[in-house]
Amino acid sequence: MQRFSVVLFLFALSLQSCDSFTALGVLGLRCAFKVRVVNFSKTKEKWSEEACRDFGSRVKKFGIELEEVTLKPAPGPPKRTVIQQREEEGKELLSRVDVGREKLIVLDERGDIMTSHEFADYLKKCADDGDRGVTFAIGGANGHSEEVQQTARRQGKMISFGKMVMNHQVARVVLFEQLYRAMTIQHSVPYHK
Amino acid sequence: MQRFSVVLFLFALSLQSCDSFTALGVLGLRCAFKVRVVNFSKTKEKWSEEACRDFGSRVKKFGIELEEVTLKPAPGPPKRTVIQQREEEGKELLSRVDVGREKLIVLDERGDIMTSHEFADYLKKCADDGDRGVTFAIGGANGHSEEVQQTARRQGKMISFGKMVMNHQVARVVLFEQLYRAMTIQHSVPYHK
Repeated sequence: MQRFSVVLFLFALSLQSCDSFTALGVLGLRCAFKVRVVNFSKTKEKWSEEACRDFGSRVKKFGIELEEVTLKPAPGPPKRTVIQQREEEGKELLSRVDVGREKLIVLDERGDIMTSHEFADYLKKCADDGDRGVTFAIGGANGHSEEVQQTARRQGKMISFGKMVMNHQVARVVLFEQLYRAMTIQHSVPYHK
Repeated sequence: MQRFSVVLFLFALSLQSCDSFTALGVLGLRCAFKVRVVNFSKTKEKWSEEACRDFGSRVKKFGIELEEVTLKPAPGPPKRTVIQQREEEGKELLSRVDVGREKLIVLDERGDIMTSHEFADYLKKCADDGDRGVTFAIGGANGHSEEVQQTARRQGKMISFGKMVMNHQVARVVLFEQLYRAMTIQHSVPYHK
């Protein structure tokens, strides 16, 4: 009876929040893998919203918990230097990342250029390693701070969609499509270009 | 008088069509640089249309003559083999390229991965070399034929936006944004991410 109560307690705990990853682990259950996309922007184009909603809803069908967080860009020149702007945005970003329990994947043109299959494999590895999820960070107008880059190198990855600079509206569409493509690769679902 | 008539004749010829590049050259005039984007698709997403219209109108402000051509995909398996499909689409594409007077730029994940600055410089070089324009080819569901790839290697370039496979709706948005970015780089116009 006591053992049943413990299990029940753990189960109740797990229902409360997906943070109770350990509790769920005991029960042999796992929360949905969380994918958070953080970007810094004042405005969003309608077309970009529509594309991300479309690919996002397809990603969710694979049981992924997908969330997008849009943060206000920090003031830049002439009020602050570019470095100060990056650092401020970096701190705001890192305060939202549960380092140690999830990976930080920073999109940066100096990052590793991966194929869609490598990207799908990396996400699978994160889930297999027991990570609760991943946070993707799309840099502000002046890129990522040194602290963000170091955290990603230590506890995640810096990846690149190529060497070209993309505006963040385009970058998020590319990311959302790659997330969907990764799911189709992982689950062997046909997906045409 | 005779000389004036010749000039007048050449000028009339140049007005008739921008194909009269030589005539315009004699007069020290040049047609607008033409950028043609060819893709194979049955449908187009609304968001992709909207994004391309937005970036396209910004590109045109720099005096570029921008045109998009959407071709019907050739039948694929089981009616034809993938190779036959590629070849048929390739012939259709190449019939629209004025090889020798314009460059063929093929988007393919095996192509050269360029930075935005290298891309801008390459387009500038095409114009400086006297090319009438460039045709960008976004491959169909099964990519480009051997003939298209060889033509691009000989009379243009194979470029890549990275190693990831993108669907053509996303690829055209990335291309249109890079075209706009290239114009801002060439004309030193500030453009934020």
